[in-house]
Amino acid sequence: MQVKSLRGKDFIAISDFTKEEIVTMLDAGKALKLENARGVPHHILQDKTIFLMFYAKSLRTRNSFETGIFQMGGHANFLTTDAVYTPAMPGKEQAYATERLEDVANVLSRYGEAICIRILGDSVDWVYGAASEYMRAFAAAASVPVINMEDDVYHPCQGMADLMTMEEKLGTLEGKKVVISWAYSPSRKKPVSVPHSMMAVSSLFGAHVVFARPKGFELDPRQIKHAKDNVARYGGSFTETDDMKEAFKDADVVYPKCWPSIEFLGHPDKEVDWKAQDKLFDANKDWICDEKIMKLTNRDSIYMHCLPMDRSFEVTDAVADGPHSVIYDQAENRMHAQNGVMSIIMNG
Amino acid sequence: MQVKSLRGKDFIAISDFTKEEIVTMLDAGKALKLENARGVPHHILQDKTIFLMFYAKSLRTRNSFETGIFQMGGHANFLTTDAVYTPAMPGKEQAYATERLEDVANVLSRYGEAICIRILGDSVDWVYGAASEYMRAFAAAASVPVINMEDDVYHPCQGMADLMTMEEKLGTLEGKKVVISWAYSPSRKKPVSVPHSMMAVSSLFGAHVVFARPKGFELDPRQIKHAKDNVARYGGSFTETDDMKEAFKDADVVYPKCWPSIEFLGHPDKEVDWKAQDKLFDANKDWICDEKIMKLTNRDSIYMHCLPMDRSFEVTDAVADGPHSVIYDQAENRMHAQNGVMSIIMNG
Amino acid sequence: MQVKSLRGKDFIAISDFTKEEIVTMLDAGKALKLENARGVPHHILQDKTIFLMFYAKSLRTRNSFETGIFQMGGHANFLTTDAVYTPAMPGKEQAYATERLEDVANVLSRYGEAICIRILGDSVDWVYGAASEYMRAFAAAASVPVINMEDDVYHPCQGMADLMTMEEKLGTLEGKKVVISWAYSPSRKKPVSVPHSMMAVSSLFGAHVVFARPKGFELDPRQIKHAKDNVARYGGSFTETDDMKEAFKDADVVYPKCWPSIEFLGHPDKEVDWKAQDKLFDANKDWICDEKIMKLTNRDSIYMHCLPMDRSFEVTDAVADGPHSVIYDQAENRMHAQNGVMSIIMNG
Repeated sequence: MQVKSLRGKDFIAISDFTKEEIVTMLDAGKALKLENARGVPHHILQDKTIFLMFYAKSLRTRNSFETGIFQMGGHANFLTTDAVYTPAMPGKEQAYATERLEDVANVLSRYGEAICIRILGDSVDWVYGAASEYMRAFAAAASVPVINMEDDVYHPCQGMADLMTMEEKLGTLEGKKVVISWAYSPSRKKPVSVPHSMMAVSSLFGAHVVFARPKGFELDPRQIKHAKDNVARYGGSFTETDDMKEAFKDADVVYPKCWPSIEFLGHPDKEVDWKAQDKLFDANKDWICDEKIMKLTNRDSIYMHCLPMDRSFEVTDAVADGPHSVIYDQAENRMHAQNGVMSIIMNG
Repeated sequence: MQVKSLRGKDFIAISDFTKEEIVTMLDAGKALKLENARGVPHHILQDKTIFLMFYAKSLRTRNSFETGIFQMGGHANFLTTDAVYTPAMPGKEQAYATERLEDVANVLSRYGEAICIRILGDSVDWVYGAASEYMRAFAAAASVPVINMEDDVYHPCQGMADLMTMEEKLGTLEGKKVVISWAYSPSRKKPVSVPHSMMAVSSLFGAHVVFARPKGFELDPRQIKHAKDNVARYGGSFTETDDMKEAFKDADVVYPKCWPSIEFLGHPDKEVDWKAQDKLFDANKDWICDEKIMKLTNRDSIYMHCLPMDRSFEVTDAVADGPHSVIYDQAENRMHAQNGVMSIIMNG
Repeated sequence: MQVKSLRGKDFIAISDFTKEEIVTMLDAGKALKLENARGVPHHILQDKTIFLMFYAKSLRTRNSFETGIFQMGGHANFLTTDAVYTPAMPGKEQAYATERLEDVANVLSRYGEAICIRILGDSVDWVYGAASEYMRAFAAAASVPVINMEDDVYHPCQGMADLMTMEEKLGTLEGKKVVISWAYSPSRKKPVSVPHSMMAVSSLFGAHVVFARPKGFELDPRQIKHAKDNVARYGGSFTETDDMKEAFKDADVVYPKCWPSIEFLGHPDKEVDWKAQDKLFDANKDWICDEKIMKLTNRDSIYMHCLPMDRSFEVTDAVADGPHSVIYDQAENRMHAQNGVMSIIMNG
């Protein structure tokens, strides 16, 4: 158990932590979940305030953080960017509408004990990595831990919840086939953060990770490399395929969801190309998780999704509401997993 | 006192409960009010979170719930529909803007201990009963109690507060003349929920309930029937009239307020007809509660209103701020009455 | 120490209080700050709710109040005017969109223990003093303390924080040169409340207060008179100048910030004149606080700003982030100073 190294640390990406540190935070979350189930009060973050700063909509993230910190004796200030002066990177300030990011980070650090941020999509003009860069800049300026509530590269809280859910359902990931798959949706405006973080956690424990997507929907090479490095060190395997059926065969975990093409997102030298995205999407409408493809998986396989889901597109109701689905357990684990993270990094 | 049957139950309409159950929740509210007055802490819902989901503006409802749950040791997450993915009925989802109602209800049920909803008016295109149907669907999907913070048919929390206020001021409702009256306002965009819930509570205790309105402003026949069934069982009487003065004569309680014509609201087969509403309203501008008409009531009569009031239209300032008015006591009782409800249904 | 006279009192302007009362509240804030630093819980406002009603954006004010009251065991309901029926002065109500101020004030008084209001600028059409009048009307109607979170004349919470910061950095204000200076910004839409409240506190303790501004940016004569009365009674001096350099020479405290011309704000008989404002502003772009002018000040001088600051205009980054700057300490003291105020007026 690695604790001291975690005190006061930012929680921005799974890959910022050792396997042992991830396990420590996960174990803390499990312990808090069990106390919660037994009705044992645990005001271990009494009088502590976290700030929830949202540049994008949220149901699970906001409510799991606000409820979770309250169970630990703390309080969440829910901040939307229209209610505060929007923090801006140097050179992008507008007098009396925005405020320099460093000023916001420093001031909030003086009042509360952690700053949680969600930023992605429209707020950074869909330039891939810009939100992640913003997150790191904010963390560098803040003197309290910054917790990533999802940016355009990482969603580590989802990763922790996904890991907790897989362990609860499968016992161990060792030797299990874990499939992260693209799926079609009419909505292209989504980040790639969830599959990235799912790869990062599932590659740490000896699983056979299979990454399935149509050509054009490859993930960030750095994230792929991180997963491959993990399996090289901790066992299991990592393979990619563009055959959804092949991937689902004998799977223990399937996690089909939509994400956009990174190539056609915005980049420092070019704007996001929605037309090219549409073309790629339209060519792959058959990537849907239905009962037929679920029959290829193992009998006790679990169907996962971070929600919100685009029912009838990413998945049929029969699967989403069927016996393999663990979506609500997974949503619940957001709270317990995050409580575990906060209890370790905000304490001591 | 009926308690066990109330644990975990939804609180959607007064008519969902027996008289004994209503009295149990009312008594709980009175006990909490007295403790509050004496400064006795009562953290009986410690660590419990309620979600306040608003599809419409609110002053009293939001603040009475948020303050009330806090006094009981709990916390309210205030949710407006622009800050979360809006829950949608099956078939009405829009990818990444809405989320299926069942998913929202299930996820929130995993985090907190009750879900409070206000929905009416524009959010259901003024189709009468659509908001109420939504409320029932949400409650069916949720695994924690759903509390109705007002829909387009019922406002049971207001009903409980009105009952508490009448009992405080009159001692007993037995034999008292209770007048629910229409009143004019330039604003037609209001629900009929308040008079419905007022009828439901005032018909349980032997009062002579008089329902006064111009022709065209009749209430829902099912709600009228419920009130008549009550007086048949518990004593008192229920009469209707289109003569405001006749109604006010010798009244102990008057509750004049504006509501629209149900006939000209939207219905599954036709749209809301604002022109017809306007015509009906304009023909009845003389339905105002002023000092002259108040002189017809009993000397100790009370003037009630749920607020917000349209001063100079529904009522003159002289009455609203005069000796008969109990509007602020009534507003305060929202909190105590709701605390009573929550303390019973969310406990055990 | 003057305590009893402060119980239940509104906190609207520094000039509403005696010097002794100001010191009492300041001392309470210092004590709470030290307890906070030592990790001593102080739930002295347990179960108490404050309402934060904002007619304008806020970062520091909202978060310092919400975090501060929580540390004292209480809770803040964060209210924006789009989420509630906007309170309106008599005669300015709109049915179902606004609600009479008296009704809002009375109802909130029934639920919670204090009402905090920020109102200025657009919400009163930039008519100078209209927001302050609104604040006083709200306080007259409310039966709990009203706390001014900034109006268009006063910002007493900022004044208390500024006083706490100066005392911490300088030990005493006696004999110190305290410079309140205008500075240029491309944004004219700001109130004059901060320099007013800074004058009010710095004139109480024997300092030499210097007020520097270009012609046209004079402050409210009543506020100037109040400062002059203070120095006549408590020692020190008060002088005005239109020479920024002269003012900065040998200064111990400099507080350069932008505010508009009061003359060209709106008044009961004429509208705000933004063109005249622009002309005045454009003629004074050289009023900037840079390292060169800071060299004129004493070696241990402090640079203050209430934030948000318009970097590159009011001040250069080199000064704002340099060795004289105390801006983040000052922002932090907002919370401690306000806690001191609340702990005294809301208790007992």
